[in-house]
Amino acid sequence: MLEDAAAELFLEQGYPATSIEQITQRAGVSRNTFFNYFGAKADLLWIDLDHSIAALVGALATSGEASVGTPSGTALERLRALILAVAAEHPASRVPWAFSQAELMGTRADLEASAPARLLALSEAIASFVRAEFSEFIARTIGSVAVGAIAAGVAAWITAGVRRDPLQAYVAAALAPALAGFTDTPGDPS
Amino acid sequence: MLEDAAAELFLEQGYPATSIEQITQRAGVSRNTFFNYFGAKADLLWIDLDHSIAALVGALATSGEASVGTPSGTALERLRALILAVAAEHPASRVPWAFSQAELMGTRADLEASAPARLLALSEAIASFVRAEFSEFIARTIGSVAVGAIAAGVAAWITAGVRRDPLQAYVAAALAPALAGFTDTPGDPS
Repeated sequence: MLEDAAAELFLEQGYPATSIEQITQRAGVSRNTFFNYFGAKADLLWIDLDHSIAALVGALATSGEASVGTPSGTALERLRALILAVAAEHPASRVPWAFSQAELMGTRADLEASAPARLLALSEAIASFVRAEFSEFIARTIGSVAVGAIAAGVAAWITAGVRRDPLQAYVAAALAPALAGFTDTPGDPS
Repeated sequence: MLEDAAAELFLEQGYPATSIEQITQRAGVSRNTFFNYFGAKADLLWIDLDHSIAALVGALATSGEASVGTPSGTALERLRALILAVAAEHPASRVPWAFSQAELMGTRADLEASAPARLLALSEAIASFVRAEFSEFIARTIGSVAVGAIAAGVAAWITAGVRRDPLQAYVAAALAPALAGFTDTPGDPS
């Protein structure tokens, strides 16, 4: 409901000119309610995606513990399975309007400014997940490269238009070649 | 000279509290001189790196034209050769202080906010360079993945300490496994 009110206002008058007060007024909720769900106005740009990022970071942090449903295999195989499982859960029909309508809404500058913290958190979670099987350098490189592949998959999904496939298909197609070269124990800088 | 004055002031009083006027005064130059070299205060955070990014984007844009010194081979081989040639030219002894001293200088927030425009420009230049040999989806994925690998290499170089190897070694070690999986004509989402 907050998201719908925000999307309407951003389309009508642009993201920069819209205040949190206007959004809560349009949605008929209090300012406190807003801050129960969002930490800042820019968080509205990342709905759904923030949910999936948090789900993936959580899955990566806990799947070291053996449990029913934990994927088996090498760290890279389990990483791939966890990423695709989260992508499969991502809402298929609700493409992030802050991205797809960036020109109309004037959201590009704030999307760019708020992206790095999210991408870095994901990169670090991935690096931690694979650290047991790789050097520190390669673990961090896998984190950064996997985030690049995920970002490419999400971007292709957003721009694919109304006949798009589910997000999982794009992420899978980007992730497979990006991770394939890490199976042969690549070397550190020397 | 402007860079040295800026680094001193950022260490003394922090990046957020330092104005362009204070920097030009410390350096003994005019405001116009500042804007001959930099478009904004945040550009000071990216010295050397901005130079190398511009050099790489330029090399990618022009190396389609046959000329002496143009690398031969597949698009991926030529891409790798161009990236490593630019990395080899990068100043070895001047590690970007805005990154290595981010906590002391208070530069982290502005580094994060100013990173995406630079990474996107590089990603798009790489995608254009390889577009003739790959699908649009895979060309964009290569752009995003290569930027992830370059960022991992640069980050490892910055954090490696005073006995670090040249930047080229870190970028080469990150780029090799990241690009290896793209040689077998990976498929589009289906």
